[in-house]
Amino acid sequence: MSENTTLDQRFAHGLEVLRMVDGEAGQRVVDSLADISPELGNQIVSWAFGEIYSRPGLAPRDRQLVTLGMLTALGGCEAQLDVHVNAALNVGLTPEQIVEALLHSAVYCGIPKALNATFVAKKVFTERGLLPLGPQPTPASATSA
Amino acid sequence: MSENTTLDQRFAHGLEVLRMVDGEAGQRVVDSLADISPELGNQIVSWAFGEIYSRPGLAPRDRQLVTLGMLTALGGCEAQLDVHVNAALNVGLTPEQIVEALLHSAVYCGIPKALNATFVAKKVFTERGLLPLGPQPTPASATSA
Amino acid sequence: MSENTTLDQRFAHGLEVLRMVDGEAGQRVVDSLADISPELGNQIVSWAFGEIYSRPGLAPRDRQLVTLGMLTALGGCEAQLDVHVNAALNVGLTPEQIVEALLHSAVYCGIPKALNATFVAKKVFTERGLLPLGPQPTPASATSA
Amino acid sequence: MSENTTLDQRFAHGLEVLRMVDGEAGQRVVDSLADISPELGNQIVSWAFGEIYSRPGLAPRDRQLVTLGMLTALGGCEAQLDVHVNAALNVGLTPEQIVEALLHSAVYCGIPKALNATFVAKKVFTERGLLPLGPQPTPASATSA
Amino acid sequence: MSENTTLDQRFAHGLEVLRMVDGEAGQRVVDSLADISPELGNQIVSWAFGEIYSRPGLAPRDRQLVTLGMLTALGGCEAQLDVHVNAALNVGLTPEQIVEALLHSAVYCGIPKALNATFVAKKVFTERGLLPLGPQPTPASATSA
Amino acid sequence: MSENTTLDQRFAHGLEVLRMVDGEAGQRVVDSLADISPELGNQIVSWAFGEIYSRPGLAPRDRQLVTLGMLTALGGCEAQLDVHVNAALNVGLTPEQIVEALLHSAVYCGIPKALNATFVAKKVFTERGLLPLGPQPTPASATSA
Repeated sequence: MSENTTLDQRFAHGLEVLRMVDGEAGQRVVDSLADISPELGNQIVSWAFGEIYSRPGLAPRDRQLVTLGMLTALGGCEAQLDVHVNAALNVGLTPEQIVEALLHSAVYCGIPKALNATFVAKKVFTERGLLPLGPQPTPASATSA
Repeated sequence: MSENTTLDQRFAHGLEVLRMVDGEAGQRVVDSLADISPELGNQIVSWAFGEIYSRPGLAPRDRQLVTLGMLTALGGCEAQLDVHVNAALNVGLTPEQIVEALLHSAVYCGIPKALNATFVAKKVFTERGLLPLGPQPTPASATSA
Repeated sequence: MSENTTLDQRFAHGLEVLRMVDGEAGQRVVDSLADISPELGNQIVSWAFGEIYSRPGLAPRDRQLVTLGMLTALGGCEAQLDVHVNAALNVGLTPEQIVEALLHSAVYCGIPKALNATFVAKKVFTERGLLPLGPQPTPASATSA
Repeated sequence: MSENTTLDQRFAHGLEVLRMVDGEAGQRVVDSLADISPELGNQIVSWAFGEIYSRPGLAPRDRQLVTLGMLTALGGCEAQLDVHVNAALNVGLTPEQIVEALLHSAVYCGIPKALNATFVAKKVFTERGLLPLGPQPTPASATSA
Repeated sequence: MSENTTLDQRFAHGLEVLRMVDGEAGQRVVDSLADISPELGNQIVSWAFGEIYSRPGLAPRDRQLVTLGMLTALGGCEAQLDVHVNAALNVGLTPEQIVEALLHSAVYCGIPKALNATFVAKKVFTERGLLPLGPQPTPASATSA
Repeated sequence: MSENTTLDQRFAHGLEVLRMVDGEAGQRVVDSLADISPELGNQIVSWAFGEIYSRPGLAPRDRQLVTLGMLTALGGCEAQLDVHVNAALNVGLTPEQIVEALLHSAVYCGIPKALNATFVAKKVFTERGLLPLGPQPTPASATSA
């Protein structure tokens, strides 16, 4: 029998994954729900992280690439983008890859949502002392210009 | 001076990238625009693929992970998801990784959009003879159950 | 110790709630996931219905009112609206209340999304032999006109 | 002939309904439109409240359940959610039912929008001295754990 | 006293505007609501067209430009876009201006939604025998190429 | 050969169009991207303004009408709406026409998004000393009331 099938065990396992991915920011979100909707906090930990994030079929960095795309496209999720730009760095994406993913989002979501997401990344990178980024690689067509 | 800075050269370069990523499906979209908005077709090729996709800062498979996330979140983009589930396979994502990315989307976009995207994947995988998928890995917490 | 804390027990409990709310339509959605993403089907049953829907803090009819509002607002979720217009009828909302909720949605989501949702309701009501609806009550201000 | 068919009469009737549902917050929104778009304020009062809200086919509390679902799903409507979490309390929904409806929204809209809406509820409940909420009922499957 | 302040008069006036803008397509939408939500049909005629569309502050062609932008951005509103591409032609926008507006939408909504809207325009233009469009003007920077 | 086909020339041309339409606000957005995603700034200038905006097929004022519609419908794009309400004034739309376009948006996007956009316009008009607006024309049906 699994050691994680009771509610307490699923919560404990999810909390471990949450801390690895989102760091303290994830814990703060869960804490801020304690007096209003502890069950939503519980579901974030037990379900989102304990059951979905912990599945081995997709690497943590790949999950954050999908997540950055979704949060950029949804719009109005700047608070969650803040957590997940941090998470993306935590699981090994470089600042340059994150910026490139958000540039890529302009093609599918349009310039305004790409801008909103990029300004969240700017805030996070500033807080973590990562700016300015070094020169970014440009397409073959441009480098020879 | 770059060989790709004239409009014709940018188009030619973009077409090459489009074909590598989207395959024939991308070409069909561009062709179907010929009698109504050839300029939109031109921008897809020259700008989206010639300028953004061709940048080296993010691997093609990573671009498709971000793209799957965005198209799932936007909603109502089933036709584009069809092209990009194919594209994801073309650039090296496995069917299992695609399915896992769409399961992950349930956390951020909700069940209905995850379902819509998964049924597009089912259609594409069926067309390519990839179903049924083999048993998928489950979390450590479950495998020991 | 709870009888529903193992994965199998949570699934069994969720399936019972799913059948009560969504009827056969819910089962068909889960079945259609079997060869592509059985885990998404499992999460719909075990998590959405087994953990969220089964909480006693909000009556089933109230959950469907919230759900109709969300699916109408999201857009592009006609397949899910079909299931949940049926679900709304299954848990005791009248056709007239459903139509009124969708009219109400015009205020918050605009006319196009209210129309899309209303035409889904028309399809479901037709399938269940509920049309035409009888005369609907009108505001005090109008009844005296 | 109806006493509410002239524009002035429809406005007067709508204002009464607006005050009952939204309280002072609704009036403040209308007032803040006076120097820029008085007609939008007029339509909110005369049309949204005078014609739609005042229809007897759906109870005020049921309208707020649908409205909470829509505003959560739309995203970026935190100002309106603030008004309508207050409205929900004004027409008889309990804080616990509102929180449960927003937890339910995680299934259909995803965790980020459920969080955004829940934090608006937290702000409103704090302003009205309603926090912390008492222990919330849990599913049968959990209570016996 | 206005001749349009009774409900019947507002409806009659709105119907006239609806027919001028949307033509038969608008009437068909209203007719199709008769057995499910006649009040939604009534509000489309009396409110949307009788009160908002009939205001003189914005020309009919300008209203359709705004409307094309909104329907493209919302997504999932292809049925309404069909009506309003027709409406745009009815009130004097040329096919070339419509196509250009939808190309412009790629900047703000991204390529997928621009494609979805352009394919609706292609369907409408085909039905009205307007394809292929003649050569479209290109930017000064390109014409001299 | 075009004088604008090299990357530098396209940028220079786009900057000219950006300044004409968006004024200093557009330049500030591009500047704020310099240390995080200069390429996104470059694409806004070279592509959005240099290639799309500069096309002669749609008048600048018409492009802003479409843009106001899209940004209102997308939601969560208040920062971009601020720039484009200014842009709309810069290219010749009157404050009254902008307000009327946003009132019109209530029909298609619902009241909350119409409110969000109108409050952005209020902020911009206040900054430019344009408030209060003079009395706005009302429909024929109302003026005789």
